[in-house]
Amino acid sequence: MANFGGHAIPGSFFLLYGFWLAVKYILKHYWRTRQHKGRQVTPPFFKRMEYFEGGLQIFASFVGIMVEQFVVDGPHAHLYNKESSEWVKLMNWQHSTMYLFFGISGIALVATTRCKVVPAGTDRVALSLALFVEGFLFYYHVHHRPLLDAHIHSLLLVAVFGGSASTMLEVFIKDNIILELLRACFFILQGSWFYQIGFVLYPLSGPVWDQTLHDNIMFVTMCFCWHLAVALLLVTCTSSVVWWTVSRFSEKGQDIEIGMRNTLSKTNSQKALLEESDEE
Amino acid sequence: MANFGGHAIPGSFFLLYGFWLAVKYILKHYWRTRQHKGRQVTPPFFKRMEYFEGGLQIFASFVGIMVEQFVVDGPHAHLYNKESSEWVKLMNWQHSTMYLFFGISGIALVATTRCKVVPAGTDRVALSLALFVEGFLFYYHVHHRPLLDAHIHSLLLVAVFGGSASTMLEVFIKDNIILELLRACFFILQGSWFYQIGFVLYPLSGPVWDQTLHDNIMFVTMCFCWHLAVALLLVTCTSSVVWWTVSRFSEKGQDIEIGMRNTLSKTNSQKALLEESDEE
Amino acid sequence: MANFGGHAIPGSFFLLYGFWLAVKYILKHYWRTRQHKGRQVTPPFFKRMEYFEGGLQIFASFVGIMVEQFVVDGPHAHLYNKESSEWVKLMNWQHSTMYLFFGISGIALVATTRCKVVPAGTDRVALSLALFVEGFLFYYHVHHRPLLDAHIHSLLLVAVFGGSASTMLEVFIKDNIILELLRACFFILQGSWFYQIGFVLYPLSGPVWDQTLHDNIMFVTMCFCWHLAVALLLVTCTSSVVWWTVSRFSEKGQDIEIGMRNTLSKTNSQKALLEESDEE
Amino acid sequence: MANFGGHAIPGSFFLLYGFWLAVKYILKHYWRTRQHKGRQVTPPFFKRMEYFEGGLQIFASFVGIMVEQFVVDGPHAHLYNKESSEWVKLMNWQHSTMYLFFGISGIALVATTRCKVVPAGTDRVALSLALFVEGFLFYYHVHHRPLLDAHIHSLLLVAVFGGSASTMLEVFIKDNIILELLRACFFILQGSWFYQIGFVLYPLSGPVWDQTLHDNIMFVTMCFCWHLAVALLLVTCTSSVVWWTVSRFSEKGQDIEIGMRNTLSKTNSQKALLEESDEE
Repeated sequence: MANFGGHAIPGSFFLLYGFWLAVKYILKHYWRTRQHKGRQVTPPFFKRMEYFEGGLQIFASFVGIMVEQFVVDGPHAHLYNKESSEWVKLMNWQHSTMYLFFGISGIALVATTRCKVVPAGTDRVALSLALFVEGFLFYYHVHHRPLLDAHIHSLLLVAVFGGSASTMLEVFIKDNIILELLRACFFILQGSWFYQIGFVLYPLSGPVWDQTLHDNIMFVTMCFCWHLAVALLLVTCTSSVVWWTVSRFSEKGQDIEIGMRNTLSKTNSQKALLEESDEE
Repeated sequence: MANFGGHAIPGSFFLLYGFWLAVKYILKHYWRTRQHKGRQVTPPFFKRMEYFEGGLQIFASFVGIMVEQFVVDGPHAHLYNKESSEWVKLMNWQHSTMYLFFGISGIALVATTRCKVVPAGTDRVALSLALFVEGFLFYYHVHHRPLLDAHIHSLLLVAVFGGSASTMLEVFIKDNIILELLRACFFILQGSWFYQIGFVLYPLSGPVWDQTLHDNIMFVTMCFCWHLAVALLLVTCTSSVVWWTVSRFSEKGQDIEIGMRNTLSKTNSQKALLEESDEE
Repeated sequence: MANFGGHAIPGSFFLLYGFWLAVKYILKHYWRTRQHKGRQVTPPFFKRMEYFEGGLQIFASFVGIMVEQFVVDGPHAHLYNKESSEWVKLMNWQHSTMYLFFGISGIALVATTRCKVVPAGTDRVALSLALFVEGFLFYYHVHHRPLLDAHIHSLLLVAVFGGSASTMLEVFIKDNIILELLRACFFILQGSWFYQIGFVLYPLSGPVWDQTLHDNIMFVTMCFCWHLAVALLLVTCTSSVVWWTVSRFSEKGQDIEIGMRNTLSKTNSQKALLEESDEE
Repeated sequence: MANFGGHAIPGSFFLLYGFWLAVKYILKHYWRTRQHKGRQVTPPFFKRMEYFEGGLQIFASFVGIMVEQFVVDGPHAHLYNKESSEWVKLMNWQHSTMYLFFGISGIALVATTRCKVVPAGTDRVALSLALFVEGFLFYYHVHHRPLLDAHIHSLLLVAVFGGSASTMLEVFIKDNIILELLRACFFILQGSWFYQIGFVLYPLSGPVWDQTLHDNIMFVTMCFCWHLAVALLLVTCTSSVVWWTVSRFSEKGQDIEIGMRNTLSKTNSQKALLEESDEE
């Protein structure tokens, strides 16, 4: 993956995932704050979102692993070459390992949403571990590289481990919108920083960056802060737009909703009772 | 900013901000503990204080960025000089970045106070991030400097990251007067240490400090602890004076207040009801 | 213990202990979630499990210390040889120290289960300290070793300190099934990694590993992540099997149980009352 | 203080303080668990204990500072010698600074006990800061020393920073007997380790320790774990003895107490009401 595309693809994924998280959690937060007392059952819409997210994670991880393994110059599922006594394409194996853990995180998300016996928070532990493994492998990945290369990758670790820590906190502090948006923010930051790494190490045009110049290090450090500021801005804008849209739609829908509620109230309360008795 | 003034200006700002925080939170704490059960609405006075603080942060950050950019030997908003293939005045750009995040923190404070939909704690996350970015940039700032210079700046990081961590804790542990005063204390410590850095690196009179002498390092480390002791003392004195003053005034004002309350009680309770129904 | 067996024995113990923890906590979790409101007294079965676990820990630690001390080439309880002015077999003494702390943890577990005056959580503090001491001694143990040897042992520390931290968290966040299974997971990871260390440093067959090759370091790092994935899988499978088994058995037993409950309800509630009055 | 006595004196103080803390908190815990519902006012006995502790801390710190300053070869309150352009006896100044913070902690303890407006937890923040400052100064203290000297002092830091962290936790998790006894344990560990440092660096008899021998480092690391085990044992024994003694005495005293309570109940409840109205 030592080219621009190899950094742009994961970057795009993380960017999209960050936006998706921001939208999902703002919708959930809207539901929590505007919740009508009579209906405490989570609407099936959120469950479907979780299934979709989990399924996509599993699918993308599977594709990622396959591509890393069976690309033309990949290891083709060979780990050790006995003849030459050498490990085969360890870089591809490391990337496969990272994908594997994001796949596990997807499975955990689906399981948590599907089965009531899976304790709440399992999905977040799995996501936190996936980020931890990503950072852990990157950490030993970047040793012995040129100065700028090592520095720009170690800045990525700030976003990765920051995301891992904030996700782990979410296991204990649930339904905290600030932590949830912080997580989205860390994913967007990670995504945009992947692009930045691509631009710096494999410039599409213009001169190659001097890997040892101290001024380049200083600029890159500062640039990471700008990416953080932009990530904060993007999360804020996305959240505001989603909140405003949902508020407007639900206002319009209210008259109809009230009409429906009168008819449906009995059915609803019966359903709620049934679900409660299931949980017991 | 490599002169005494360049350290005295941010130092004064942080000192004043620390005192302001101490006063604000003691007033809030007084309100919380002496709160009359009938009136749970935060008085508009506190809101106005927050607007003032946020507005000042935004204004000061804006001025700071402008000065750093358009000072005589500044970068004048140029980041890269294509002719000489060099970054332009990265130090000024780094300081601008720091100001930017304090500006964002100001905007977050105003937004949190103004809109009910902005989740409580957003202002503290933003402030914590601003301190983190400050420390983060300083950390890479001071590499490759003479021993004493690097050491005296790395001690500053203790105050900066300590403040960042305690502010982040406040997101989860709300209305804890100890954390709030600790934050004030860290800001005062940071402010007074900026002055100390100015005195040590750019002495107004007397001999220049030997940058490599081990005894100087030892003295500076100990001196940081003295600054901490003084910061604790200042926060304690400020708090005591404010508490005592407010107590005396509120005792005097009580008779009148009781008279007013009888008249106003109905209006108040109606207002409270209205606000509550808004929140729903 | 510088041979394969010396790593396989502790590895097996940690693996078994991890599985035991998974089974124990799933049973406890089942009890907590399916708890019938009328019977809040912990069944004596759980107490017996704790006694068994604590007793085994004490016994195994005692045997471990004895073996380390009185093995043929052991120190035979001599610490310092005055004639040659040398410490006697410090490695064996260090292992004895590790066993000692796991013994203390066993005593704490028995005491916490037996006496009501011993505050709940003492057993977890002791276990956390035992893991901390293990990691602490290992940390200084592996200095000045060849690169691969040092690296593979320092990866063990991730599992050890991770377990210590998550166990310490359990002191404050009680009855959290996620933390409890995470602890089991860390023990299984530690156990399987001990085996891996044995395979790498003392291969049963095949060539000796090159201690300085960078590719070996990279593979070992990745392999640690695979062990983590397997540990997660094993904990999940164990938990599912136990949960499913218990659910089936308790369904079958329910009819009888209901019959018994009608008869026993009075006795039970009286017992509960008595125990409550004891606790006061 | 570079002699055996200079390590034995603070060691004795920390040992005694650790035992005092264990006794105090077990008494408090006994009171909390056996508390009769009717009397929720803390008995004046505990307040007197706090005053005594705080007063002793202030007194001991004052004496410590005076001794460090005005001992025969001390700095006599001179900080800088202008003639020789040298700092005067920085080591004594550093020790004075450490004492100063323990003095501040004593003042905070007295203030918290005396005034209701001082927020609960202030004493623990001050004690945590005192330990932090001690560790902070020690950290830069031990740079550039021989290997064994640096190592044995850096192990002390484990006890110091451990105590600081657990005390800071107590600010947020109040009345947790495990944390309170852990604090006592860290102080006893610190005290006994001071003695160990004295024995190793300034042996009363026998040969001088080889400062560079790796085996010495290994033994000292292991020895620290033994000190931890002994500290745990001492805290456990002290707690058990105190608990058992108090239980026996209070059983004997109960008959008399019940008699007294009948008479005093009205007075007590009136007092409680008065105190409650004060707090409002």
